Amino acid sequence: MSLDAVLARIDDDLPAALDRLKALLRIPSISTDPAYSAECDAAADRLVAELESLGAKAEKRPTDGHPMVVGYGGSGGPHLLFYGHYDVQPVDPLALWNRDPFDPQVEDTPNGKVIRGRGACDDKGQLMTFIEACRAWVAVHGDLPCRITFFLEGEEESGSPSLVPFLRANREELSRPDIALICDTGMFDEQTPAIATMLRGLLGEEVTITGPDKDLHSGMYGGIAMNPVRVLAKIIAALHDDDGRITVPGFYDGVPELPDAIRAQWEGLGFDAERFLGGVGLSQPAGERDRTGLEMIWSRPTCEVNGISGGYEGDGFKTVLPSKASAKISFRLVGTQDPFVIRENFREMVRAMLPPDCSVDFTPHGASPASVMLTDDPAFEKARAALSEEWPNPAAFIGCGGSIPIAGYFKTILGLDSLLIGFSRDDDQIHSPNEKYDLESFHLGARSWARVLDALAKE
Amino acid sequence: MSLDAVLARIDDDLPAALDRLKALLRIPSISTDPAYSAECDAAADRLVAELESLGAKAEKRPTDGHPMVVGYGGSGGPHLLFYGHYDVQPVDPLALWNRDPFDPQVEDTPNGKVIRGRGACDDKGQLMTFIEACRAWVAVHGDLPCRITFFLEGEEESGSPSLVPFLRANREELSRPDIALICDTGMFDEQTPAIATMLRGLLGEEVTITGPDKDLHSGMYGGIAMNPVRVLAKIIAALHDDDGRITVPGFYDGVPELPDAIRAQWEGLGFDAERFLGGVGLSQPAGERDRTGLEMIWSRPTCEVNGISGGYEGDGFKTVLPSKASAKISFRLVGTQDPFVIRENFREMVRAMLPPDCSVDFTPHGASPASVMLTDDPAFEKARAALSEEWPNPAAFIGCGGSIPIAGYFKTILGLDSLLIGFSRDDDQIHSPNEKYDLESFHLGARSWARVLDALAKE
Repeated sequence: MSLDAVLARIDDDLPAALDRLKALLRIPSISTDPAYSAECDAAADRLVAELESLGAKAEKRPTDGHPMVVGYGGSGGPHLLFYGHYDVQPVDPLALWNRDPFDPQVEDTPNGKVIRGRGACDDKGQLMTFIEACRAWVAVHGDLPCRITFFLEGEEESGSPSLVPFLRANREELSRPDIALICDTGMFDEQTPAIATMLRGLLGEEVTITGPDKDLHSGMYGGIAMNPVRVLAKIIAALHDDDGRITVPGFYDGVPELPDAIRAQWEGLGFDAERFLGGVGLSQPAGERDRTGLEMIWSRPTCEVNGISGGYEGDGFKTVLPSKASAKISFRLVGTQDPFVIRENFREMVRAMLPPDCSVDFTPHGASPASVMLTDDPAFEKARAALSEEWPNPAAFIGCGGSIPIAGYFKTILGLDSLLIGFSRDDDQIHSPNEKYDLESFHLGARSWARVLDALAKE
Repeated sequence: MSLDAVLARIDDDLPAALDRLKALLRIPSISTDPAYSAECDAAADRLVAELESLGAKAEKRPTDGHPMVVGYGGSGGPHLLFYGHYDVQPVDPLALWNRDPFDPQVEDTPNGKVIRGRGACDDKGQLMTFIEACRAWVAVHGDLPCRITFFLEGEEESGSPSLVPFLRANREELSRPDIALICDTGMFDEQTPAIATMLRGLLGEEVTITGPDKDLHSGMYGGIAMNPVRVLAKIIAALHDDDGRITVPGFYDGVPELPDAIRAQWEGLGFDAERFLGGVGLSQPAGERDRTGLEMIWSRPTCEVNGISGGYEGDGFKTVLPSKASAKISFRLVGTQDPFVIRENFREMVRAMLPPDCSVDFTPHGASPASVMLTDDPAFEKARAALSEEWPNPAAFIGCGGSIPIAGYFKTILGLDSLLIGFSRDDDQIHSPNEKYDLESFHLGARSWARVLDALAKE
């Protein structure tokens, strides 16, 4: 079957493909906020229709949360599972967007055309690169080049609470493919495509400290009553030592040193930490003192405060001594760090720092270990070669700072290895205001998938 | 002139007085929030009308912020200045109120009847005790027992930005009285009235730390990019040492030791720190290790975080590495601590703790020194004797943890000493949800003022 005709079809169909992406982006499928539940459902419906338009058999499968979309296409050859997610992050602070985040448009920028809107990259734009590649195969050849199970999730941005139960309940059905394709990662740089083979895990915890049983007047009670913000600040300040190491007891158990071969390959990538940080107004790496920039974002564990609140936060001033203060704290995990052990050790550390009269509540928000792919399967080299055909530079095996727990679950529950291939760029502002996806990422991404499907379909 | 008839008139008129207070409480005059500007104006109009109903000549005087209300009543005798404020604190968190904060009602409680609503105590309820005492004098005797300048402010809960300019601009007019009466403080306990002779000052600062120039994905940037919440937490954690002392350089310059006579008087009051803290769900004094409970709230300086915010604060979890984190921090000052010196030293300390790549913005929110009254003026003993007639226990000279900068300005700008007399109780929940004022405070408060006016009017 001719690959060139498929690539030409993708080129010709780009305007229509963009319209389809924009239609998906207009649905505000914010999974973490219960107010957008119907919109998550609508996004799932739209993807069922997209899969059916490829001739796939597709349906929405209910869960306790947002539905999964599962579809089947192709009539012969190897069997792949494709994963993406249709939910998106919240959009606040809304005032920092240069447009309505759910009214996507193509914008001209000094670096070329981009599609702007929440989910343009993460992950609606990315998953549509695959669907458009499939559409072109079907349009040119009347069928997909191999069998594909489509598996699209709607809770990736909110800790994937239904994922493991769903994989377990449908293990027999979903474990039939030979390998998984996951499109939720980035290029190494704008000229160098990448396959992520090292993914950090994620542990999320919300900590709420309570002091007095109500908000107090800081004049009447200031000085004699314990202020929970002061307690919380002390706990957060104690989470890193002066060398940037994380102080939770036992935290570094299972954190491996980088193998020499990988270290050499990463050094060859010429990562420029100052340039990477310069893109966000910073200049100095803030991680562990003796680590390289790529280690900090790919192979070392982290602890970050994702949100903090307490007391009066409005305009002006209010002399309140607050009853409560809380923080959302997350840990990125590597190697064989055990999220459940770390959660317990963290909680124990917090409890030990509580002064008399204060109490603490913990709310868990997801716990997934890191994943490291074994690249022995020939599919890894086939995919690397196919990607290298499409882009200026050869594709690289890289680490990934973000957490994609799905790869770990595919391995442990379904027994599937995963090829993590995506086309986002460092400046896509995913999870931030003004998220975008380069038109080139969308277009060449679809072409890349056409090539990868062609390569993997050949036994 | 008969005092008994005035007291009887106050007793008889209580239901109508309550209706007048409720009408004032229904006006949401939240001075710190620009959205309530018209309501502040309406509260001022209402008070002009109340003063005119006493036969006083009254008017609203414009400022750059909310207006002052100034009125004149009485035709002979000593000349007093009465101060109160008609603005109130914000009401959030609204969900914790047991009723609409601006729909005040009298409620039965196990401790007797209370008036519930924002401002019921601070300061609308308190200032109306004085106006009702004046109304009864006028009703019974056709005139006030002495000359009174009424001076009512609308920005006390938002740092009084217009106060000093107004006092300076109207110095000649407002400095004519012999002494000031300020009704914005509390009883020592429910049986013991008090005159506050030692008031803490207040310094407010808002600190905003900026790290990256936008919110980032904590997976992509976590570990390599500096997190401003971590920086802010470290700064807040460093503000107190392990003994509860405040670490801002030079902070304790001008903090006096308590004179032995005052220490002895305070020990005689039998203050029970555990009982005081028990009322708000605490048990252990959290201030400087070697100080008594009364020192912590009356005569020692403090540092409190009144609010903190940064990153994602909504429901669920968002793996954002925030661009900014900010805190509202206030210091209560005593003795001759200089708020402007402390502000500079605090800012210098914060700047010195900033890591590379982070910047800080400061927003000042008021700066007033402490006041200590000299009780040599015979008016202090006259007022103490008058209050002691009304209540079960004799009145005490006490300290006051809250900051009432007006007393300092009356002294330095107008040359007036102040008698700080008020009837609030520790459990009035001022600045908190469910603020209330005991009906007894309102009723006996008005009777107390009638007695104090009688005593002060006698040369």
